[in-house]
Amino acid sequence: MGPVARDLSAIVGAEHVLTGAATRDHVTDATVSRGVRGSTDAVVLPGSAAEAAAVLGWCYEHDVALVPRGGGTGLAGGAVPAEGQVVCGLERLGRVIAFEPERWRAHVEAGVTTGTIHRLARENGLMFPPDPGAAEQSQIGGNIATDAGGPHALKYGATGAWVTGLEVAIAPGELIRVGGPATKDVAGYDLLHLLVGSEGTLGLVTAAWLRMIPAPEVALPVVAFYPTVAAGCAAVDAAFSFGLHPAALDFVDGRAFAAAAGAYPGTPPDGAGLVLLVEIDGPREDVERQRTELYEALGPGSSRLDEPPPADLWRWRDGLSGAAVAVRGGKVSEDIAVPVEHLAEAIDEVRAIAGRHGLEGCSWGHAGDGVLHGTFLLDSSRQEQLAAADEAARELFDLAVRLGGTVTGEHGIGLLKRGALARQWPEPALALHRQIKALFDPKGLLNPGKKVA
Amino acid sequence: MGPVARDLSAIVGAEHVLTGAATRDHVTDATVSRGVRGSTDAVVLPGSAAEAAAVLGWCYEHDVALVPRGGGTGLAGGAVPAEGQVVCGLERLGRVIAFEPERWRAHVEAGVTTGTIHRLARENGLMFPPDPGAAEQSQIGGNIATDAGGPHALKYGATGAWVTGLEVAIAPGELIRVGGPATKDVAGYDLLHLLVGSEGTLGLVTAAWLRMIPAPEVALPVVAFYPTVAAGCAAVDAAFSFGLHPAALDFVDGRAFAAAAGAYPGTPPDGAGLVLLVEIDGPREDVERQRTELYEALGPGSSRLDEPPPADLWRWRDGLSGAAVAVRGGKVSEDIAVPVEHLAEAIDEVRAIAGRHGLEGCSWGHAGDGVLHGTFLLDSSRQEQLAAADEAARELFDLAVRLGGTVTGEHGIGLLKRGALARQWPEPALALHRQIKALFDPKGLLNPGKKVA
Repeated sequence: MGPVARDLSAIVGAEHVLTGAATRDHVTDATVSRGVRGSTDAVVLPGSAAEAAAVLGWCYEHDVALVPRGGGTGLAGGAVPAEGQVVCGLERLGRVIAFEPERWRAHVEAGVTTGTIHRLARENGLMFPPDPGAAEQSQIGGNIATDAGGPHALKYGATGAWVTGLEVAIAPGELIRVGGPATKDVAGYDLLHLLVGSEGTLGLVTAAWLRMIPAPEVALPVVAFYPTVAAGCAAVDAAFSFGLHPAALDFVDGRAFAAAAGAYPGTPPDGAGLVLLVEIDGPREDVERQRTELYEALGPGSSRLDEPPPADLWRWRDGLSGAAVAVRGGKVSEDIAVPVEHLAEAIDEVRAIAGRHGLEGCSWGHAGDGVLHGTFLLDSSRQEQLAAADEAARELFDLAVRLGGTVTGEHGIGLLKRGALARQWPEPALALHRQIKALFDPKGLLNPGKKVA
Repeated sequence: MGPVARDLSAIVGAEHVLTGAATRDHVTDATVSRGVRGSTDAVVLPGSAAEAAAVLGWCYEHDVALVPRGGGTGLAGGAVPAEGQVVCGLERLGRVIAFEPERWRAHVEAGVTTGTIHRLARENGLMFPPDPGAAEQSQIGGNIATDAGGPHALKYGATGAWVTGLEVAIAPGELIRVGGPATKDVAGYDLLHLLVGSEGTLGLVTAAWLRMIPAPEVALPVVAFYPTVAAGCAAVDAAFSFGLHPAALDFVDGRAFAAAAGAYPGTPPDGAGLVLLVEIDGPREDVERQRTELYEALGPGSSRLDEPPPADLWRWRDGLSGAAVAVRGGKVSEDIAVPVEHLAEAIDEVRAIAGRHGLEGCSWGHAGDGVLHGTFLLDSSRQEQLAAADEAARELFDLAVRLGGTVTGEHGIGLLKRGALARQWPEPALALHRQIKALFDPKGLLNPGKKVA
């Protein structure tokens, strides 16, 4: 045990510090499918917010960088450590501190899984709407650090919209609370939402106050198949202009659908250019009425409309990423977002860009929000394919910016998109960004190399 | 015309710079009812975002403080200038740059009134939910600067939840854009929401991208009268636990109701301890079903339930503040917020605090969000009453903090609550607050004396 691990053991107990081969599960996230792998001297697992703050304090005192880590399901390498950096895993902070269903709120530690929060809500007639993928592994602290979205963010907003308070360890090692259980507070600058989505570069979230709402009586997904991207995107437009308010409006392009067709909860059609997954929710009679309108909106140009069970459909949807990896053993996927009117162009361009780099491209995402997981299928053991995909990803970022969108709609900048913010923000805004980082983290020890160029 | 006005005239044209007596309408806001009145050397009215940035640039070059001003309906003195400060009125930035109902979005200049945005939405089957008071006077730029709420924020969130992009003039005189028409973007720190609610102390909002949603088919308000505060607050609890999701859940205490009873759209009862204004909305059949449940929730302990026309009810509700002023010619009102379980205690305490200071107290607010406009009725020409009310307000802040709430739920810190943030934030968070101010406004010229102690 080296001196770092020894000192950290004094804070959290030796059994909660991992070193050597035992760190293996804490040095990668979902970007392992594109060959990203980190390394660390020590993984420290605090058992309380106070221990987490003490760990940060020790790191600040000894100039050691700290990489906060939730469930490790990130898609931008935000939790991947570099040599000499300590990983702080939040999994032991797994306590539901308070759950008050009659007040529609919960107070939870950062390591509680998203799935646990969904279940707590559901079992009490409530809904916690944010639904990023991998709910059983991903943790609320990580969801907050990335402002995680998901299909239902279209109607309900991303994670940040459901957080009313945060407990955060900040440099040089103090615990602060911003907000709390009260839903409205405009006394100070909105530090809460500045911390949400900051990817562990400004502070370490240790606990959160969450709000919930009564669950809709019924959720009804409709899957619509279209022969072409253009026909499918025309149906997206129609869904908006019919005055419907879908809870989710996702798309899967033909190639991505084909990769996952075997697991589709229903009989997959022979071929499709674009598939829409639309969910309407609300009281039963209203969903019946919306269903009629939805069929009118989605019907024209479609080859088939399906109604799979909601849980099956969204489980299948959650497996798309894995299915894409399975095609060739790896993938490079980037979650650009564009104003929704440019969705068709962006979907077509992903495949065209891939083609120019000798790769196969596909995409899926949240059509209603213009979020597009542009994906290049590859063998991650072949360096030339990874290099080609990195080039292709850069073209994808150019595309997003050219269409007035963003290089990341929901996964974050992480390690992999480092520097990409400069493509879309003017220099004075970038300067503020850098200065905010310096203000919260003057020594640059909080998840260095992530988010900020 | 002094040198300041002359220089500013060169930027915006002499006819758009007001001096002397012509500044009269630009030196007060709604706090005039408690005797607050400012003064200014010059009011400058830029006609474009570029002119606004140039005004800020001139101020920064010449070390002159700038007070941004929207519709002047603020309740915390946030737009009240002090001698030597220039007021920048945004009323000429009144253009709807783009409105795309089929995409549920609008791009508007900062001076567009909230009422205009509501009408645009409504006439196209949409809803822009934030509904702070005085919609015909208040401007979207001011709503953004204060993160203005309103009764319907309970279900739909405050202004910030409906803003996807901002154009902002920042020091030392540049225009930046954060966000835009796309709904999802996690590339940078959330500067957008840092600016929302910053009360013009970090930058000058010149335009915004707003999102909207399909309007609910029906909105049905139910007014319930209770003999006591306790009975009314028990009904608030019941409304939550019945699994209803009211769009609004406001309260008016007996004294405040009596002040406005003459204008109530219906036959006012002889006396009431607490009145609840609850609105349910949605598709027609569902509202009928909710109505039954709502009557079950609100009925026990009530003396009467009314269903006034929604527009009439909310117009009446908007007039409560004026009705309270009319009792004695003035009032001091502070919008504390508390976790909703402490609402009854807070309502009772407002009257008790008032009594201890020889004043009459009353309150109304957003029960569901725990927001309480604690009000002391007074004659604003009598200094001893104003002084007593200031003392009473300080006790109100102590109460809010003691109950785990905030000194301001929606009106902001402004001039009047300056320094009050220190009551509820720990020193490390206050330090971050001060440093963020210094980062955006190193010379301290943006609305000095507001928000930051």
